[in-house]
Amino acid sequence: MSLKSDKKLEEKKYRQETGLFMLEGKKGILELLSSSYEIVRIYSSLEASADIETALSEYKTRTGHKPEVLIVAPHVLESSSTVRSNDAGIAVGKMRNLATIDEALTASLSSFVLVLDDINDPGNLGTIIRTADWFGITHIVASKNTVDLYNPKVLRSSMGSFTRISLVSCDIEDFLKTAYEQNIPSYAAVLDGEPIIETNFSQNGIIVMGSESHGLKPDVLPYIKKHITIPRYGGAESLNVAAATAIMLFSTKR
Amino acid sequence: MSLKSDKKLEEKKYRQETGLFMLEGKKGILELLSSSYEIVRIYSSLEASADIETALSEYKTRTGHKPEVLIVAPHVLESSSTVRSNDAGIAVGKMRNLATIDEALTASLSSFVLVLDDINDPGNLGTIIRTADWFGITHIVASKNTVDLYNPKVLRSSMGSFTRISLVSCDIEDFLKTAYEQNIPSYAAVLDGEPIIETNFSQNGIIVMGSESHGLKPDVLPYIKKHITIPRYGGAESLNVAAATAIMLFSTKR
Repeated sequence: MSLKSDKKLEEKKYRQETGLFMLEGKKGILELLSSSYEIVRIYSSLEASADIETALSEYKTRTGHKPEVLIVAPHVLESSSTVRSNDAGIAVGKMRNLATIDEALTASLSSFVLVLDDINDPGNLGTIIRTADWFGITHIVASKNTVDLYNPKVLRSSMGSFTRISLVSCDIEDFLKTAYEQNIPSYAAVLDGEPIIETNFSQNGIIVMGSESHGLKPDVLPYIKKHITIPRYGGAESLNVAAATAIMLFSTKR
Repeated sequence: MSLKSDKKLEEKKYRQETGLFMLEGKKGILELLSSSYEIVRIYSSLEASADIETALSEYKTRTGHKPEVLIVAPHVLESSSTVRSNDAGIAVGKMRNLATIDEALTASLSSFVLVLDDINDPGNLGTIIRTADWFGITHIVASKNTVDLYNPKVLRSSMGSFTRISLVSCDIEDFLKTAYEQNIPSYAAVLDGEPIIETNFSQNGIIVMGSESHGLKPDVLPYIKKHITIPRYGGAESLNVAAATAIMLFSTKR
């Protein structure tokens, strides 16, 4: 293994072949070290290694995993990075198995589960994961066309929150249909629903957000009990999906 | 003028030298054509030109401006673009004068004005502008270290909302001090304020958001009347600033 070959993990193809993913930057490495993810290798600059050392020793004791640590010159790290300034390092970890539909359904009985329909922008998905984590969500159900969780930009913009979220990847129509038949409360953000101010959210259930460009697939709408809207007061045609998700999740807590 | 030289407008330096900016993609061009911005030139693919034609003719009649239109081969456009798929075109427009502190103060007497302290990420600024526009905000006051409004990524992620927002660039401490002395209501999102659910927002005033990494400068805190917090329910260390802004602006409307 080398930094050059591990760098290929930026691409989904290589992640699928190896079962591994990469995370850049000191902050990212420290986030991964504070999780229970299995870390295989850490490439670190000499400068960053002292900070990483303490977290690494705690990580080894706690998890029993023993990542290999390789010291690399900063300019080598920088040239292998998708971000401009990466003088700290890169961690390579094992991807986790996705969660199951049953686990997400169970989670929706006691708290909220977020369902995403074809979110394509990695920055949006990362921000949504971070926001969901802030509001105590543990399970996200994503349609098959949603951008890959282990895309480096998703991981980076999730700011470590991906380590605390269980993701299900499935046909969301199947998931929503099952939830509907089990009478689990569900809420979709749409353009022509009831004003969100008037919605009394239950204590648990499902929040459904549509894609950046096409909104929610019409096929899934009949399986969502409440259609709600964030009223518009100005000129913008729509809200960014991560901004709308933040408002939806915040509203469940009022 | 050529596409090659206009492409330099991606850089702030060339925008400052020429007073011009560029906007990519058909959607961007149509947004600009529906505004009152002065458009100097439009580079368009033949394919996109038909769609642009109608909007262009309306634009000419309404504004009196007569942009030059140049038909360019799609592969030439694509190679001159910061985005991967740009088969539609590029518009070059004249940057507007910024708004004044007095204009923003006047706006804060009848509606909300948003104040941004060193927002560095162009995607965040663009999303914040779009969200502000959705909630009917017309004036944003940005600290001098906030990323440039005419940065192509800001324009793109604002989805046309930049054409409806007046921006003031100034020392925000001066602005907030003046507003404080004039007894204008002001609210800052901080980590240790009163829970936002308990806040009764007035009908007008100022919402202040801090930078992605450092939050609000401590110097400005004494000049903001209410310090409020979006409560955390999960593991994330913080919220993305655009997500937090969405929740703050939504909360002013409850």
